[in-house]
Amino acid sequence: MNPVEIIRKKRGGRTLTRQEMEFLVGGYVKGEIPDYQMSAFLMAVYFSGMEFEETATFTDIMLHSGVVVDLRAIPGVKVDKHSTGGVGDKVSLILAPMVAVCGVPVPMISGRGLGHTGGTLDKLESIPGFRTDLSLQEYKKAIAEIGVAMIGQTREIAPADRKMYALRDVTGTVECVPLIVGSIMSKKLAEGMDALVLDVKTGRGAFMQSEERAIELAKTLIAIGERFGKRIVGFLTDMNQPLGYAVGNWLEVAECIECLRGKNVADLMELTYALGGTMLMLGGKTKTIEEGIENCTQAVRSGKALEKFLQLAKRQGGDVSFVENPEKYPPSSHSREIKCSTTGNIGSLDALEVGFVNIMLGGGRTALQDAIDPKAGIVLRKKVGDAVREGDTLAVVYTNKKDVLDDASRRLERAFAVGNKPSTAPPLIKKMIDKDGVHPWLG
Amino acid sequence: MNPVEIIRKKRGGRTLTRQEMEFLVGGYVKGEIPDYQMSAFLMAVYFSGMEFEETATFTDIMLHSGVVVDLRAIPGVKVDKHSTGGVGDKVSLILAPMVAVCGVPVPMISGRGLGHTGGTLDKLESIPGFRTDLSLQEYKKAIAEIGVAMIGQTREIAPADRKMYALRDVTGTVECVPLIVGSIMSKKLAEGMDALVLDVKTGRGAFMQSEERAIELAKTLIAIGERFGKRIVGFLTDMNQPLGYAVGNWLEVAECIECLRGKNVADLMELTYALGGTMLMLGGKTKTIEEGIENCTQAVRSGKALEKFLQLAKRQGGDVSFVENPEKYPPSSHSREIKCSTTGNIGSLDALEVGFVNIMLGGGRTALQDAIDPKAGIVLRKKVGDAVREGDTLAVVYTNKKDVLDDASRRLERAFAVGNKPSTAPPLIKKMIDKDGVHPWLG
Repeated sequence: MNPVEIIRKKRGGRTLTRQEMEFLVGGYVKGEIPDYQMSAFLMAVYFSGMEFEETATFTDIMLHSGVVVDLRAIPGVKVDKHSTGGVGDKVSLILAPMVAVCGVPVPMISGRGLGHTGGTLDKLESIPGFRTDLSLQEYKKAIAEIGVAMIGQTREIAPADRKMYALRDVTGTVECVPLIVGSIMSKKLAEGMDALVLDVKTGRGAFMQSEERAIELAKTLIAIGERFGKRIVGFLTDMNQPLGYAVGNWLEVAECIECLRGKNVADLMELTYALGGTMLMLGGKTKTIEEGIENCTQAVRSGKALEKFLQLAKRQGGDVSFVENPEKYPPSSHSREIKCSTTGNIGSLDALEVGFVNIMLGGGRTALQDAIDPKAGIVLRKKVGDAVREGDTLAVVYTNKKDVLDDASRRLERAFAVGNKPSTAPPLIKKMIDKDGVHPWLG
Repeated sequence: MNPVEIIRKKRGGRTLTRQEMEFLVGGYVKGEIPDYQMSAFLMAVYFSGMEFEETATFTDIMLHSGVVVDLRAIPGVKVDKHSTGGVGDKVSLILAPMVAVCGVPVPMISGRGLGHTGGTLDKLESIPGFRTDLSLQEYKKAIAEIGVAMIGQTREIAPADRKMYALRDVTGTVECVPLIVGSIMSKKLAEGMDALVLDVKTGRGAFMQSEERAIELAKTLIAIGERFGKRIVGFLTDMNQPLGYAVGNWLEVAECIECLRGKNVADLMELTYALGGTMLMLGGKTKTIEEGIENCTQAVRSGKALEKFLQLAKRQGGDVSFVENPEKYPPSSHSREIKCSTTGNIGSLDALEVGFVNIMLGGGRTALQDAIDPKAGIVLRKKVGDAVREGDTLAVVYTNKKDVLDDASRRLERAFAVGNKPSTAPPLIKKMIDKDGVHPWLG
């Protein structure tokens, strides 16, 4: 077989055979197919797409490029959550311990910040000592013993995806449904989950800005899940403004601790409960999502979710004294309040811009090798729908880089649009999607 | 500027600025942009295309990645020919000396065999000692002193194209009009020509199999030529069967020597005279193409074209004793006659297959580093339209590789389709194309 012929076949819109994809993907993992041929192939897939069965085969090949974890020895239906990525999206940190408390084991393999979005691993690692690089043995043991583990993609999990993902990031081939599906599903199927809840973001701060493309992605993920015998329920959620008030790694952990202690950050907890309730339903612990939401609310109110989070952090090496006393976390050397220059209502707050400001402050990466400053970031004081008066604080920025303060502050201020008409935030959860189709979400 | 943003912009079908293309192409030549980003970009261009002005800018950037030869000190309009490549296409070897004899200087930079097609450089180098790697100084001096030079793309000529062409060949991004145009025109504009005759092949043995795509390519080349102040006339010619009777490097040189000595290989000389006549017209030596054809015929009949070829070969280091006595060229160790198994008429002869058989015999490359056997190849005895009887010889194959004889012979025999109806070869020259449009060719 000849890699150029396979690239040309896909370029011509034809369907590849399993043998051809195995030759290409397998050869790439072994280093026999060079990056430049793979990137040409990925761009051809971007334009020509893949048939459904072809996407399933592609996913299967990516999955079996590494170890497939077997969690069948652990009782219960294992349920995970996946978000397509947003700004201030810290849901997993509350969700995983909360669902575990309710009796559904959560095997969670997460990623790092990508582009303007944050990543669960970076957030967890802002807790001093927290190890996200457990071995697969430690990971299985943690799920068996405390019902939850939160780790990164190990060397053994879907190595084809790891190598291909890094290449897609630098060749403009990220935004492509079959490639996204293959990437997400190969990792999720490898981690040993039985069912999955999807949070598909749309809007300014999401990778899929249009609702149509986001729905197409969700439907394909659900269908591929079915094809592999895994039940998936998806939510289409708004990512025009950041989720919650904190953006930046430790700042987001601190906000989660507050929520686990009972504070109701409305949008963040609404979404966390909806996703958690669905996980309990999928895990067979409740008949309905509503009942699941009730149980989740109880798990937080009772303090059990916080306890589970402490247990999880401790088990993975984290210094829980910081979780118990967030105020002892060393502060950034610089901070500045962003003041409102007019009176009116916040009409919009650009999540993409907030994400970029966070990167400027040191809270994200512009290149893979960049170090993150865990303390850097933004705490919003106002969000869409809030009335503001001239001189009110819109947000506070935190950084160790004095020289970026002016630019970052100016850019953040411009991310807020203040109008003179009353405004309301758009509905956070727009649709629920399952194998039967797209449904309204009544909340 | 960010290469990923430029790739994404082209992916989205938008027009790139000169600055963006300079960043990408310049960075690629300097090794700052890696192959994998360039190949993703090239595939995005394959799908998204380029606007006309964008193609002109792209060509200009490729052109100025290296030296632009200035031949203005040499009197006369310098005219070159470019063929898009075929099987048995040995026209340049007769054409260049013939046109030079008629008073039009010919600055010719040619290529090597690509895919199933042969290359002028490989053919010339089958003459022992023949150097195609003259320096640009030697090249200019030869044109000034004897009116013709035939060399390969030097290190100084369009290095961006040389690097990008090698990448396109292995990433399935060859067949793309703006990329082909940028590649051809950057080299041709760099060599110092004032006008150009194009031979655009269509049919089984051509890279552009469809006539529509071939015409699109010719029109774009002509328009880009106009944009750079160079007059171009194109011919759309048939490449369903090989041109002439010989396929294989030395075998083709030998056929050219016969033609220069006065033998009329009908299709080969028809095309050579048409292209040559057009070159004389473009070079201002004749008013019409017809008159130019007359002068060219005279140049061959008088023996002056052969003399010029000997002068050229000698000047470039070739052992002209082989040109003077082709029979002293060492023969291949093996040869076999391919016999006809039925009686009828040759309905078709697959040029693509003949090209592949030539590669099998050792007359072409499957990888860039492969050595060519200059003696290997095929001499056809029958072509489309010929009546044949059972037992007639269809062709003779020559090789040093005994083990391929059986396979090559079988495959070559199948390249001939013998029917029981009278047949005629399709018209060789199908259309003439200039800046005013597509015209019929009356021959």
